[in-house]
Amino acid sequence: MPTAFQDCYPERFSHCWGCGKDNPRGHHLKSCWDGEETVARFTVPPEFSGGVPDHVYGGMVASLLDCHGTASAAAFAYRAAGREMGDGGEFMRFVTASLKVDYLRPTPIGVELEIRGRLLGIEGRKVRVALSLGAAGQACARGEMLAVLFRE
Amino acid sequence: MPTAFQDCYPERFSHCWGCGKDNPRGHHLKSCWDGEETVARFTVPPEFSGGVPDHVYGGMVASLLDCHGTASAAAFAYRAAGREMGDGGEFMRFVTASLKVDYLRPTPIGVELEIRGRLLGIEGRKVRVALSLGAAGQACARGEMLAVLFRE
Repeated sequence: MPTAFQDCYPERFSHCWGCGKDNPRGHHLKSCWDGEETVARFTVPPEFSGGVPDHVYGGMVASLLDCHGTASAAAFAYRAAGREMGDGGEFMRFVTASLKVDYLRPTPIGVELEIRGRLLGIEGRKVRVALSLGAAGQACARGEMLAVLFRE
Repeated sequence: MPTAFQDCYPERFSHCWGCGKDNPRGHHLKSCWDGEETVARFTVPPEFSGGVPDHVYGGMVASLLDCHGTASAAAFAYRAAGREMGDGGEFMRFVTASLKVDYLRPTPIGVELEIRGRLLGIEGRKVRVALSLGAAGQACARGEMLAVLFRE
């Protein structure tokens, strides 16, 4: 299993409920390369249901796309710069400027979800990423993110 | 305190992690009328931080807008039909077709957030809602939702 992007985040950026390795109670989403794209896999536990118990709540779908999207934006920026995340140089952390989610069908609980990211473009500090979330080969949601390089 | 929209949902739609009254571990967001607009207030507990511990994770911002948005869409549809939610007639439940979130600044942890909804338009089964999320009078995020009347 390759090192996840989130496992390369410095400690001060690692507390995210959705994907931070240092959040003791969070989801610990892990994203990595799959060729030119990025991928994460996650099975949502039953308590994170929507109004109907069999389906994931809408905010969770957005959360998975958001955490995978910012990690993917960073990965694409590193690759474009000829670098690898965790290479010991100055860390590039991306934050969400905007996220659009289209909900195509209900997302099932208790089934492994596949979240994918594809680079749309890089322009200065801005990275645009196309996102998708599927279950058992069926698309449940798609998204688009504009992420921006974080400056301290 | 007026009855929250979510407290009028029938039991079968009340299990949402974000706002369902029958989810034993969820956030139990409560939305209600404020004149022509809708409002919900929520203080995010520390474990739901973003990468940096002082700020809310991005997916949580989307979640609050999503739960408040679908509840608001239903409320606007009831009012447009001259009805009150919980009037004992056939229940109108709305689901998200699309949600766009613009992140304007980091959202603080441990501070009461105000989430607001404003009707943009109703067209058949579709309701469009403008959303905002602020802390201490400062806008942290804004959103737009297209919600659709759920048919079983």
